[in-house]
Amino acid sequence: MAHFGRAVEYGLHVLVTLASARKDGEFSAKDLAEFHGVPPEYLAKTLAALCKSGIVEAVEGFRGGYRLHRAPGDISFLDVVDAIEGPNKRFFECKEVRQRCVINQGSESSLAASGVCAIHAVMIGAEKRMREFLASKTIDEVANSLERKRPHELKVAADEWLNSRSSSKRLRTK
Amino acid sequence: MAHFGRAVEYGLHVLVTLASARKDGEFSAKDLAEFHGVPPEYLAKTLAALCKSGIVEAVEGFRGGYRLHRAPGDISFLDVVDAIEGPNKRFFECKEVRQRCVINQGSESSLAASGVCAIHAVMIGAEKRMREFLASKTIDEVANSLERKRPHELKVAADEWLNSRSSSKRLRTK
Repeated sequence: MAHFGRAVEYGLHVLVTLASARKDGEFSAKDLAEFHGVPPEYLAKTLAALCKSGIVEAVEGFRGGYRLHRAPGDISFLDVVDAIEGPNKRFFECKEVRQRCVINQGSESSLAASGVCAIHAVMIGAEKRMREFLASKTIDEVANSLERKRPHELKVAADEWLNSRSSSKRLRTK
Repeated sequence: MAHFGRAVEYGLHVLVTLASARKDGEFSAKDLAEFHGVPPEYLAKTLAALCKSGIVEAVEGFRGGYRLHRAPGDISFLDVVDAIEGPNKRFFECKEVRQRCVINQGSESSLAASGVCAIHAVMIGAEKRMREFLASKTIDEVANSLERKRPHELKVAADEWLNSRSSSKRLRTK
């Protein structure tokens, strides 16, 4: 099983879509799920987590839906991962094996109490490198890269689809 | 659940112990498990994986047991992780969400076929940073750090315990 679950992947795709759409309207979890072809109930939970962390905001009512709450350049991959997985999820959990070592049992000068285990320290360093990289990458960068690469007809198709579902469109067609 | 399982932690501790012991003898999985206070059947599997990857070697027979097969300076944390978790375990598994996007369905110029997904590419970059860091840290470094920090009486106690169980000692007391 991967360390980061499907919700992280879904959340990132939705945020890139919201950043690319750049419309005034909001989009329902159901429409965003349909657009991406992902399970709506799963995406609803993901959006709730992103909302709780202030990355997206939910507008209630008939015109309701989700929209970005921060500029896409201010949303890092790390923000998204921490919002969805929780900020304390670590890829290595030190079980303090050294405390169980026969020579540390009952010793007053036990190594067990002396700071971070050297093995754990290496893992913390590795995770720090990963997190620094994720913190340096924003939703804006990926949305711009998609914008440059996406064939024109697909861009038009995406805009049309999203416009047809945005809350402002729904309001206009009332 | 952490990305790297307990076996990685157990394996790293055992390798540091084997590097610190620096004796001619070999140690049985049972003795290494007892020394570290970890489940013997679990450690046996971990040692088998380390053996398969050429990090430790098993000497069979009455004098049998495990010893390092490579110099501790030539065993990186990444070697150990890959030996135990498998070299293809990734912390993010791209499910190609873009292929399911409504606008990519049936499109000849589908984005789905155009290289690595930009979101996946960021995750690959983050994992690369983590793996580079793990590749830069060796068992020798941690063993040396332990050597410097460990109180003298604990070092003596560890050496005595390990000597009493090493294969050469067992041979001498036959």
